[in-house]
Amino acid sequence: MSIKLYELCGADENHLFSPHCWKTRMSLAHKGLDFNSLPTSFTQVPKIEGGATKAVPLLRDGDTLLSDSYEIAKYLEETYPDAPTLFGGEGGVALTNFVINWSQSQLHPLIGGLAMKDIYDILADEDQIYFRQDREAKIKMTLEELHAGREGKVAMLNKALLPLKLMLKGQAYIGGDAPLFADYVVFGALQWMRMTCTIPVLAEDGEVADWFNQLLDMYEGMGRSANAAA
Amino acid sequence: MSIKLYELCGADENHLFSPHCWKTRMSLAHKGLDFNSLPTSFTQVPKIEGGATKAVPLLRDGDTLLSDSYEIAKYLEETYPDAPTLFGGEGGVALTNFVINWSQSQLHPLIGGLAMKDIYDILADEDQIYFRQDREAKIKMTLEELHAGREGKVAMLNKALLPLKLMLKGQAYIGGDAPLFADYVVFGALQWMRMTCTIPVLAEDGEVADWFNQLLDMYEGMGRSANAAA
Repeated sequence: MSIKLYELCGADENHLFSPHCWKTRMSLAHKGLDFNSLPTSFTQVPKIEGGATKAVPLLRDGDTLLSDSYEIAKYLEETYPDAPTLFGGEGGVALTNFVINWSQSQLHPLIGGLAMKDIYDILADEDQIYFRQDREAKIKMTLEELHAGREGKVAMLNKALLPLKLMLKGQAYIGGDAPLFADYVVFGALQWMRMTCTIPVLAEDGEVADWFNQLLDMYEGMGRSANAAA
Repeated sequence: MSIKLYELCGADENHLFSPHCWKTRMSLAHKGLDFNSLPTSFTQVPKIEGGATKAVPLLRDGDTLLSDSYEIAKYLEETYPDAPTLFGGEGGVALTNFVINWSQSQLHPLIGGLAMKDIYDILADEDQIYFRQDREAKIKMTLEELHAGREGKVAMLNKALLPLKLMLKGQAYIGGDAPLFADYVVFGALQWMRMTCTIPVLAEDGEVADWFNQLLDMYEGMGRSANAAA
């Protein structure tokens, strides 16, 4: 029985844009595991697998049902130990949690600010109603107000990427000579932006863009074949 | 022949304050290796071991002579594989470089700004001359000008620590259940601040302070026994 991956989509089922789902997509490709993609819109999420989750990715592998891309990556590492490692040992597992919290606290708020209205625009009608209500309650302004001031966040995001940029001067990937799950964590954030944000953000030259392009090309260009927003 | 560790000191030889030297001190203690500490002032550094280095830590272990705390940690890991691991595998080695670049780019500039004048004040006369000239050329202002506006950096530093704070809600150390070299990287930065900065900076309660206190207590309180500045 093949693996099922429920992943977030827009009005177009081929528009897969969730950062967390991309972390899992890349993890599965890294492990060389086939999977069936089940595109799921925001308002469908609570209905899948008998209401098993509030958020995707949701992975079913036989009797195992898991959400949270980090938990999924750890499960894949344990369950498929002969496939290429996602962590490179126990130290890698632990340190990945630092990269996750860095990406989540330093990159995600900026990308969310840059792309939230663009995300709204690609959703199906019923998802737009949910998304506007949920997000506007959180940001305490309208999507349009958030959108109006977004240009200032372009420089902030490139500045927030500085630790990655500096590290890439010394090694090809966060994982060293080859990517590990920690790379997919940050890739997920930038792919989320690439798939939604209608203005260019990432500086086109330089270490981060080169690293991102390498990851877009991997696994037969799986990341690149997904259409970008702009 | 025991290991020699050349490490930076102030006018008082017992005032060991370098972040990078603390990374190596903690690495040696973690590996359970005895070492002779050779306190070295700024202007003495170019004279040690026949001019082998521009910066400390400098470690001599038999015929091996190494500076750079990351290189030293990797050397210790390879040379003393039966002692507790500093990295937890190859993934840990690689991901540590991300933590290093995060700490160096996000914490060090702020701590430097908070403590530079305080560091000057604890140096011997001849080191003060070197230090003022070198640092003022880099910051393009006087130490006193930098010092005057430092209070604003207190909140900035606590904000910069957010990725660590969030991660510590889920696990005890960057290394997981026990510290790895990545913990000592960030510990080194905060110990540098503790040993020099004359105003309180780190929020006294909360995850980061708890984690820092645990590390100060380790290895028979090696970090805590070093006198703080304030």
